Amino acid sequence: MREVFHQSLEDVQARLVEIAELVSVAIEKATQSFSTSDVTLAEAVIEADAIIDEKAAALDELAIEILARQQPVARDLRIVVTALRVSASLERMGDLAEHIAQLSRSRFPERAIPKGLKSTFTRMGELDVTVAKKLTELLRTEDLAIAEEIRNDDDAIDELHLSVFEKVLGEGWTGEATATVDATLASRYHERFGDHAVSVAKRVVYLATGDWAGADDSVTLPA
Amino acid sequence: MREVFHQSLEDVQARLVEIAELVSVAIEKATQSFSTSDVTLAEAVIEADAIIDEKAAALDELAIEILARQQPVARDLRIVVTALRVSASLERMGDLAEHIAQLSRSRFPERAIPKGLKSTFTRMGELDVTVAKKLTELLRTEDLAIAEEIRNDDDAIDELHLSVFEKVLGEGWTGEATATVDATLASRYHERFGDHAVSVAKRVVYLATGDWAGADDSVTLPA
Repeated sequence: MREVFHQSLEDVQARLVEIAELVSVAIEKATQSFSTSDVTLAEAVIEADAIIDEKAAALDELAIEILARQQPVARDLRIVVTALRVSASLERMGDLAEHIAQLSRSRFPERAIPKGLKSTFTRMGELDVTVAKKLTELLRTEDLAIAEEIRNDDDAIDELHLSVFEKVLGEGWTGEATATVDATLASRYHERFGDHAVSVAKRVVYLATGDWAGADDSVTLPA
Repeated sequence: MREVFHQSLEDVQARLVEIAELVSVAIEKATQSFSTSDVTLAEAVIEADAIIDEKAAALDELAIEILARQQPVARDLRIVVTALRVSASLERMGDLAEHIAQLSRSRFPERAIPKGLKSTFTRMGELDVTVAKKLTELLRTEDLAIAEEIRNDDDAIDELHLSVFEKVLGEGWTGEATATVDATLASRYHERFGDHAVSVAKRVVYLATGDWAGADDSVTLPA
């Protein structure tokens, strides 16, 4: 029984890593489709999101089953509770990658990135990919130094997000309403992706330390 | 011991209802401040959000403690698992109410609702308040007919959300970039608020029926 139990817990962690990897692939393809107007890539992201959703739901069910049958305590319990919270964030990160892909697709054959914001969105996209990859590594290793790196990367994403609004609301902005809407939504999606990564990172800190309150994820930028 | 346990579970449910009530108050004040440019009201929402965050974190800690000490099964376990997931959604709904209030405050003394969209945002705001109140009632009573009503209200919110984009991207739109950004963000916040309400409603269905997969909340509008 004990052995079966530990296999299940290892399974929970392996599944979290697997979902995080799928999210990494999704955001990498989504941001690439966004900067190159590659509609095939965008469609691949949109199609693959259902797999992330299914895997997240299946992980939740496994976590609940472990709680019901094996009544874990201490670190084992933290693994299961973390999984329940993290699966929701990863699922949401997959949705945000999908939204970015949908923006690319909806503007095709035009380029979705508004004029004058190409380098900003390229950098935000790179940072989103970076935090997704770091998150996968963090879930695999529980190396808390990576959690700190993710916070720093998210700060950089937040700065870029604010710079998009400075640009769009500045004197020199000549974009049509479409460009303004696209910039606003795309920036918001990129920024929320980073927020969720920080939220997951905090849960991994809880997993390692047992401090839930310190891992609370209530602080986010408004836009 | 059993009696203490049942008191804790009742406490979990009572706290969910309490947080949902605070969220209802927040969205009511936020949408009112948004339509009337009442900066005092906006500031009250922004200030009160920390209370929602604290109560959600405290509820999580109670839920984890119950899992660790009392190892609940069946419906008792579902209450605790639901609380862990629902607290995150309610906390996020509080954030969205705060974001709407921040939009009102940032445009003060101007009106935050862009010209030509007054009736649309008034209606979206009313629907957000309605779903928040219904959610409180659903958490209190577990009357699943209310869950269905929330889904329908959310469909109406989604339609209004799409109509905002039709307006902003239409021929007749003469708004400056500021108005376009405000309309985009405000509409997104209102729409996400409804999504979270549906997500919570689905978790209450799980609580009542034990069907987690059917309560999966992966389907959302992109913008």
